[in-house]
Amino acid sequence: MSKPLNVGLIGCGFMGRTHSNAYRKVYSFFKPELKPALKAICDVSADKAKAFADTWGYESVETDWKKLLARKDIDIVDICTPNNTHREIAMAAAAAGKMIICEKPLAMNTAEGQEMVDAVEKAGVPNLVSFNYRRVPAVTLAKKLIDEGRLGKIFHYRAVFLQDWTISSDLPQGGDALWRLDAKVAGSGVTGDLLAHCIDTALWLNGSIRSVTAMTETFIKERKHNITGKVEKVNIDDACAFLARFSNGSLATFESTRYARGHKALYTFEINGEKASIAWDLHDLHRLGYFDHRDDSIVRGWRSIHVTDGDQPYMGKWWVPGLQIGYEHSFVHQVADFLEGVATGRPASPTFRDALETQKVCDAVLESARSGVWVDV
Amino acid sequence: MSKPLNVGLIGCGFMGRTHSNAYRKVYSFFKPELKPALKAICDVSADKAKAFADTWGYESVETDWKKLLARKDIDIVDICTPNNTHREIAMAAAAAGKMIICEKPLAMNTAEGQEMVDAVEKAGVPNLVSFNYRRVPAVTLAKKLIDEGRLGKIFHYRAVFLQDWTISSDLPQGGDALWRLDAKVAGSGVTGDLLAHCIDTALWLNGSIRSVTAMTETFIKERKHNITGKVEKVNIDDACAFLARFSNGSLATFESTRYARGHKALYTFEINGEKASIAWDLHDLHRLGYFDHRDDSIVRGWRSIHVTDGDQPYMGKWWVPGLQIGYEHSFVHQVADFLEGVATGRPASPTFRDALETQKVCDAVLESARSGVWVDV
Amino acid sequence: MSKPLNVGLIGCGFMGRTHSNAYRKVYSFFKPELKPALKAICDVSADKAKAFADTWGYESVETDWKKLLARKDIDIVDICTPNNTHREIAMAAAAAGKMIICEKPLAMNTAEGQEMVDAVEKAGVPNLVSFNYRRVPAVTLAKKLIDEGRLGKIFHYRAVFLQDWTISSDLPQGGDALWRLDAKVAGSGVTGDLLAHCIDTALWLNGSIRSVTAMTETFIKERKHNITGKVEKVNIDDACAFLARFSNGSLATFESTRYARGHKALYTFEINGEKASIAWDLHDLHRLGYFDHRDDSIVRGWRSIHVTDGDQPYMGKWWVPGLQIGYEHSFVHQVADFLEGVATGRPASPTFRDALETQKVCDAVLESARSGVWVDV
Amino acid sequence: MSKPLNVGLIGCGFMGRTHSNAYRKVYSFFKPELKPALKAICDVSADKAKAFADTWGYESVETDWKKLLARKDIDIVDICTPNNTHREIAMAAAAAGKMIICEKPLAMNTAEGQEMVDAVEKAGVPNLVSFNYRRVPAVTLAKKLIDEGRLGKIFHYRAVFLQDWTISSDLPQGGDALWRLDAKVAGSGVTGDLLAHCIDTALWLNGSIRSVTAMTETFIKERKHNITGKVEKVNIDDACAFLARFSNGSLATFESTRYARGHKALYTFEINGEKASIAWDLHDLHRLGYFDHRDDSIVRGWRSIHVTDGDQPYMGKWWVPGLQIGYEHSFVHQVADFLEGVATGRPASPTFRDALETQKVCDAVLESARSGVWVDV
Repeated sequence: MSKPLNVGLIGCGFMGRTHSNAYRKVYSFFKPELKPALKAICDVSADKAKAFADTWGYESVETDWKKLLARKDIDIVDICTPNNTHREIAMAAAAAGKMIICEKPLAMNTAEGQEMVDAVEKAGVPNLVSFNYRRVPAVTLAKKLIDEGRLGKIFHYRAVFLQDWTISSDLPQGGDALWRLDAKVAGSGVTGDLLAHCIDTALWLNGSIRSVTAMTETFIKERKHNITGKVEKVNIDDACAFLARFSNGSLATFESTRYARGHKALYTFEINGEKASIAWDLHDLHRLGYFDHRDDSIVRGWRSIHVTDGDQPYMGKWWVPGLQIGYEHSFVHQVADFLEGVATGRPASPTFRDALETQKVCDAVLESARSGVWVDV
Repeated sequence: MSKPLNVGLIGCGFMGRTHSNAYRKVYSFFKPELKPALKAICDVSADKAKAFADTWGYESVETDWKKLLARKDIDIVDICTPNNTHREIAMAAAAAGKMIICEKPLAMNTAEGQEMVDAVEKAGVPNLVSFNYRRVPAVTLAKKLIDEGRLGKIFHYRAVFLQDWTISSDLPQGGDALWRLDAKVAGSGVTGDLLAHCIDTALWLNGSIRSVTAMTETFIKERKHNITGKVEKVNIDDACAFLARFSNGSLATFESTRYARGHKALYTFEINGEKASIAWDLHDLHRLGYFDHRDDSIVRGWRSIHVTDGDQPYMGKWWVPGLQIGYEHSFVHQVADFLEGVATGRPASPTFRDALETQKVCDAVLESARSGVWVDV
Repeated sequence: MSKPLNVGLIGCGFMGRTHSNAYRKVYSFFKPELKPALKAICDVSADKAKAFADTWGYESVETDWKKLLARKDIDIVDICTPNNTHREIAMAAAAAGKMIICEKPLAMNTAEGQEMVDAVEKAGVPNLVSFNYRRVPAVTLAKKLIDEGRLGKIFHYRAVFLQDWTISSDLPQGGDALWRLDAKVAGSGVTGDLLAHCIDTALWLNGSIRSVTAMTETFIKERKHNITGKVEKVNIDDACAFLARFSNGSLATFESTRYARGHKALYTFEINGEKASIAWDLHDLHRLGYFDHRDDSIVRGWRSIHVTDGDQPYMGKWWVPGLQIGYEHSFVHQVADFLEGVATGRPASPTFRDALETQKVCDAVLESARSGVWVDV
Repeated sequence: MSKPLNVGLIGCGFMGRTHSNAYRKVYSFFKPELKPALKAICDVSADKAKAFADTWGYESVETDWKKLLARKDIDIVDICTPNNTHREIAMAAAAAGKMIICEKPLAMNTAEGQEMVDAVEKAGVPNLVSFNYRRVPAVTLAKKLIDEGRLGKIFHYRAVFLQDWTISSDLPQGGDALWRLDAKVAGSGVTGDLLAHCIDTALWLNGSIRSVTAMTETFIKERKHNITGKVEKVNIDDACAFLARFSNGSLATFESTRYARGHKALYTFEINGEKASIAWDLHDLHRLGYFDHRDDSIVRGWRSIHVTDGDQPYMGKWWVPGLQIGYEHSFVHQVADFLEGVATGRPASPTFRDALETQKVCDAVLESARSGVWVDV
């Protein structure tokens, strides 16, 4: 018999939707011991919050997150607000003894992130940062293959996250869905928004990064700001690329941009090991590329693995072989793993502490882009 | 303000799951005027039904479908039972004035199907057969492109549905998930199970089929039967291929098998028109292949359209460009369209009458496979 | 030390070019014991023949093939003329004791083909029909994998050869490059021109075909004839599809058309065996698709084998791994194998006798298309 | 009527083969006004030279390149020897008034390259460096699309050249085919061997590079040396990656390695412009990826252009649409263009002067890898 766990979610944007959908689905597929209940939705706009509650079936509505945190009937606080609010809410939630799921990136910078780690660890509350791509089954399978030693010594890692939605200079910055273009709210541009995903996966799959050298660019220097109504300087990085050396001796290239015409959300990574290589691509997320040098030489080739079988990560919970799942399912897996971590006392990763490592790499990248020299992480 | 519509679903198998998931999701994404409520689940096994009710949140449980049909609080009867039960349940549901959603294929044969069509039309109840692949966004986009005349005159249609799950002779037939191998329950093998999907899509996209010539094969002649416990003759078609002529003058090849090693559920179709061609593939269902001869000759090529944009069918309701949906979403779209059809009085297709056309083609195919000559549909 | 072998080639069209290129290249890469010398080119047009001799380095020119055959200094007669001339030239060449390479299809029909087989066998001259696709390295590798038993029992074979160059009704028929549209010269349309390739490969890879049922269509009924200048009825098949049963119990579908918009020369085949499957595609001819069910289940997938390694068929003679060859090389391999067959007394396949089997299937296909019933080969 | 032009080629290795094949083929397909004749082959090994002459049809043999240069009957000197010999031979050939084709990279470093440029320009002899990938038709098509303005402003360029042939530590260095691993002979590792190709293409397609930051790695520190027989330090770069800023404001990442398991010779580049993007891949060199944002939004997607049509670069000279060419043909195109440049007085690119720009970037990359800071080119 499952025990209920009450969720209070803050933020009615895109991420609020993905998390709400995950809470609604997880029980039907994963039968967790702890069953999430959509208790309260919180947004500064009461109208938005009410509409969101109707859409997703939240039982109640709040407009002040402090009130939400004060409620005794809330077990999990889920932070889906813009980056510049993460620290304050998370610190308060920890102090209130709530479990916390926080959207990525963890914080505006490493200093903030460190405070947050200290807070949740002092409070002893379960905590997770939503780097959801780890839980795409093909990516989880990649982790499994590496951990089994199938790749052998790793020589190379390369990752890109390419988008093309900000190419038009008519696009304004700030407010609503466009806060990602406003450095005061987002902290950085593609580095925190997109590369943070690439870095999280990389650290998970390939261990720690030792040092980086980077460049950033802001192609469109000024945009109208939605809130002030004025044309203002754009302070985010539109594009960022960096070279890296991992502690295991492998070399890496990372790149992200919102000016790669033809790519909507093309997150790809490839890892080359002594014995085998793997490749993955968010645009066909249900597939994993795999090359195994141990195959007979005349029939060696990259395999395109359709990750939909019951013995592949998470897939036994869904449909039948051959039938693909999509983007949203990575969030369902995240909730399932978080709940299992709470139930078993073996916390799911990435915790705040894990996510702080990604934050440190992001900070080193941005510092290198300013200084022009290699920066140790 | 949405009005509730109470669902009573019969059958706790794979299709019961896909439909239940769709009812649970449709409101959050499509906000239909009529909002489905999971009122009752019915299965001959009370244990299964109870577990299913817990999993999906059904309010009540029945073990006799006749009782379900007798309930006043049920608006929609959803038939997810094996093929040999469709007719009886659907006839009774129509007589009870219920709206009906029925899994495909409509019936065991055309004669049964005709009775069912007559019954629902006489009763005047909304009815739909669950040929869900029409509502994969890429397939719906294909329909749109054809209807806009982008392909011009059609010359060729080809479709396959390839699986490999019955190659082992150790696999038994009959009972539970394996009723599809038992001709008494399934009616036919791949023809009704898989080719019916291909035919439904083809009739929708390319109009009626005039005549066919076919061959079938049963590769493994005997299998242990799960219910009798004895080795029994296998009476289904393991594989079926046919040639067809459409009324519009185009030629077609269709093939299905469960012995195509390497393909889990590879439903593909391609349509060649005078001006353009399209291709689709269930293993990467979020993409559509498109070739347009009107492109400048030096840059002409097959386009791989990542069908995840807001202006592509259904996709405005989901996430953001670049983030793919999966198999299950086709059922959500089906429910959304059915509900809109009920609300507006413009019924969603395929109705029982539409599905009867597919049944007729299936029957002609099986007859041709027996007789060795061309059979008019 | 290589011995020279003098080639007399008849026909300055497209195939004359591919064969001439092959003769010029074979020695540098394959070092055959017998080294072909371009002795004479023959064409009814003296101007064409002279220009061709200059282009390719032929030593002499003839305008009457009978004179060519009468020359003592010609060892190999290579027939690259339209189909309706194959029989007469080949019979005479055999009578003159020449080795013969003949373009495909062997003949206008089985009766002609039988005469040709009898003639070359009576004369005891080496003979080969130019079904060049067997000698694309990826296709030869497919043969090797099948012969090694890697696929196990074969269940399915499917092949298509799709083009789109005759869709315009403005295209005339007859004469020069367009004799392929003139049934009097070509014998048939896509059946002899394109399906003959598919059938040859199929017989080689999968054994004999027992019976077929077919349909053909001529989409554009009349075209201007280049020679008569008049609009005339089109008598070739624009498209042809057939179902087949092989002697080994496997089922097959074959299709060819020149009305498949978007495909220039898309010859593909796929073979599904109990243990493994293979797939190939002329548009990327240097790759072979391979799925092996014996791979670990979690990393099973279709492999894309880049057939450019030294241990793959023919490739040790060319460049280095990763560097692809193209269409023309299949003809070089054909000449190399023919020369080796002559030198060793173990004739290269397909001989005229082998090619007669393809002719029989073509005839059965066309007969079935007329009669509407299954025809035994 | 074509005039003969006598070729003297130095070096019987892999590049000697590709160039010889090109000279033998160019006339049959391109009918240049100047027709190359294979006059002399030169190698320090008389046995190798004789065998090579037999294989390719060279009329004479030399073992001392100075003698070759002294011959009056030699018009073109083609330098296919290891990198450390380019300068001396080229300087002497220029002094002797010969036309020069030189394998890439131009020189061991910029200083050498500058001398060579000065020499050929002073001598006024036609000169070309063999960056053959420019003349793969798909790459030439990319150039044409960019020059037509189809991409608009360029934001991003990324290129990799990935191989996996040196992963085994048993592989020795030095001598024969393995001089590429010996820094004294090769100058550098992947930077000069592979990245030089990427840089040449990039400069041609996207203009000059302003500055770079780089890292290199030698994964296997010692290897047996084939000539000395001793285990010696490996001084080449096994891998090199760099970030770059182009003069046009675009950002770039470049990477090359011989430790990318699964890639034999995967040279890829992608260019993202405001309006369109292009992508190419040496493993399928006959295709070009193209995305055009101006396409109707619902059917927008990456096009896979099969570059085999008569109106695409060079392809009108080869076979018919749909039939691919391969690696070797890029060299045929190079010779054809060189000969046309000589005939018309409009020299084909890249001349020594053009190739010097690539050398400068290579030097800047290696310097940055040593210094750890950005280096201006």
